[in-house]
Amino acid sequence: MTIAPLKLKKDQDRRLRAGHCWIYSNEIDTKATSLKGLEPGQPVEIFSQQNRWLGSGYVNPHSLICGRLVSRDREHPLSGSLLVHRFNIALSLRERLYQRPFYRLVFGEGDGLPGLVVDRYGEVCVVQVTTAGMEQMKDAILAALDKVVHPKTVIFRNDTSVREMEGLERYVESVGEEPGEALAVEEHGLQFRVPALKGQKTGWFFDQAYNRQRMAPYVDGKRVLEVCSYVGARGASEVLSVDVSRTALDAVESNAALNSVSDRVRTQRGDAFEVMKQLREERERFDVLLVDPPAFIKRRKDLKEGTLAYRRINQLAMQLLSKDGILITSSCSHHMSRDSLLQTVQQAARHTDRSLQLLEQGAQAPDHPIHPAIPETAYLKTFYLRALPSF
Amino acid sequence: MTIAPLKLKKDQDRRLRAGHCWIYSNEIDTKATSLKGLEPGQPVEIFSQQNRWLGSGYVNPHSLICGRLVSRDREHPLSGSLLVHRFNIALSLRERLYQRPFYRLVFGEGDGLPGLVVDRYGEVCVVQVTTAGMEQMKDAILAALDKVVHPKTVIFRNDTSVREMEGLERYVESVGEEPGEALAVEEHGLQFRVPALKGQKTGWFFDQAYNRQRMAPYVDGKRVLEVCSYVGARGASEVLSVDVSRTALDAVESNAALNSVSDRVRTQRGDAFEVMKQLREERERFDVLLVDPPAFIKRRKDLKEGTLAYRRINQLAMQLLSKDGILITSSCSHHMSRDSLLQTVQQAARHTDRSLQLLEQGAQAPDHPIHPAIPETAYLKTFYLRALPSF
Repeated sequence: MTIAPLKLKKDQDRRLRAGHCWIYSNEIDTKATSLKGLEPGQPVEIFSQQNRWLGSGYVNPHSLICGRLVSRDREHPLSGSLLVHRFNIALSLRERLYQRPFYRLVFGEGDGLPGLVVDRYGEVCVVQVTTAGMEQMKDAILAALDKVVHPKTVIFRNDTSVREMEGLERYVESVGEEPGEALAVEEHGLQFRVPALKGQKTGWFFDQAYNRQRMAPYVDGKRVLEVCSYVGARGASEVLSVDVSRTALDAVESNAALNSVSDRVRTQRGDAFEVMKQLREERERFDVLLVDPPAFIKRRKDLKEGTLAYRRINQLAMQLLSKDGILITSSCSHHMSRDSLLQTVQQAARHTDRSLQLLEQGAQAPDHPIHPAIPETAYLKTFYLRALPSF
Repeated sequence: MTIAPLKLKKDQDRRLRAGHCWIYSNEIDTKATSLKGLEPGQPVEIFSQQNRWLGSGYVNPHSLICGRLVSRDREHPLSGSLLVHRFNIALSLRERLYQRPFYRLVFGEGDGLPGLVVDRYGEVCVVQVTTAGMEQMKDAILAALDKVVHPKTVIFRNDTSVREMEGLERYVESVGEEPGEALAVEEHGLQFRVPALKGQKTGWFFDQAYNRQRMAPYVDGKRVLEVCSYVGARGASEVLSVDVSRTALDAVESNAALNSVSDRVRTQRGDAFEVMKQLREERERFDVLLVDPPAFIKRRKDLKEGTLAYRRINQLAMQLLSKDGILITSSCSHHMSRDSLLQTVQQAARHTDRSLQLLEQGAQAPDHPIHPAIPETAYLKTFYLRALPSF
């Protein structure tokens, strides 16, 4: 496909110049550069209203985010060699921070590669492509991965629903050596297995890896209730793991066996709210509650209802905590700000007559780098709270 | 002194009921309960306009924050036994999280004891009392400390300027065994000595302890510039430490000697901005910049000017960073929000043509617990950023 020009309306270059990389369809000067004639995924050069060259990237005329800037260097547009360059920069960060090759290698916009996620499970790379522009680069992605990390197998987990917004089909495909049924993960000296071709995300929640390590001194020797969370084998004396997904709980059980802690780990399938209410009625108490529900606020319009859901789940958590208990609570909703989440949890505390001490604050692990000019790259917030009787 | 009633104006009980503990002088129903007749530090019982009992605490009619709620339990007002109880609760948290007895044992409002800070240096406790109400409890504080942690020496570092706002004299006093010239600190296996009776704060910045540990993988083997910060001996190949205070730099040098890294640590005395400009002119480059200036925003009215100072210091930092460098930057100004600090640093990045990746976020260590209903207890923000050429 030929490289097309894309001209922005007056003042619509501000976001890009501040460092963001998204262009919305209503920001295009369609008189000068019609979106209609462009193909999904077509490469573009982006210009301001004053014809200042802003960068190069790709478009999708059928998507609300109709364009993404990929490069601000006129000599180096999106290409096989740019992918190799960006992969190398991404890899050098992970190699500095991670002892073993189990991490998110590429985190889309956070690593300067909008539309692309690559998770590394040793010699297996699991790739997610979410834009038509990146889909065009599929062969170049394979070649660049081969050059930079030499994987034996690359699995395309291109089955996420966001692909539909770009008009892309959903599929799973594997290239290279046949993958086994499970992928192996090593994390802080523990071993895990996750399903290779199904399961949530690419199989493992790398974004919580740092939090799982920081939890250790809090769960050590304690009775722990995990809600849609998984810390399992890290020194707790007793763990009850609650999730609505049988697949998730099967993984909890088999990983407990793998790390020889099956005698300490139980699972209970069910809706988190229902199971927590039932445990409350049975007057169960836990020393530590881990709460990490799926995003309650997927779109901005869910803000009010979703905030209420966070309040309810954290209130239930506090009712299940022993007198001097630890609540480690997360939200992965980008639309829920850190301040709002803390306020919501504090309201739940007042309602249950608890005083809170906020001890530590977590975020997504550094293999999910946040781009400060792209707020959408920041999503995971975790609070480590001590809940005491009201003082 | 007798316990006096203190009645609030209509609706002025909201903050207290949400969990805060401060009362401002304009919130008192002075017709019902005159402040004038009360002594600084006098114990009070606090009532809403509807005569609902809210809690007990103490007052200072000469201070803008004229009252502080200490207890919401009618049976247990501020007393020697309440101090013992709160000290024990504070101690159990630190003993769970810290291997060795070097930490802030009591963090004022965050531990339910407004006006009191206690730092523990092994068998020495360093106490700061900042309100007239807590000054009344001095003997009880000594007795409670003796019961809970049996220190050999208690040093009152009652020489902070905030005492003047409460009309309290400033003094330093030591009780028990004569303290040596220096206090010993152990942190993550390293040894430090700090001046016992002078120096900033109580001698050691415990609030940065967790950050100092998390910095390790970033500074390992690297050329590091520390600005008003101190990480020193943690694996860096070369450290240049800049501070305006000779006392601080003397401590850097003697602690480097203590940990056998004098050959890798240099110091330079001077104004941070001036020294950084000079290094920039000399075209010096560092792999890692640590920036932890004193609070540029002490009062809300300094917000604009202080924000500019944060922007300038971070911009200078980025100009001193190598092409793929790490900036670990802190603000201890409560009035500078986490979001504003990140925005300020991002502006500095755009101005120096850098793209940032936010890798980790730090806060004050858990021996400085934040009370979510008392925003003033949260002050330290730290960002771990990777600065790359603009992409």
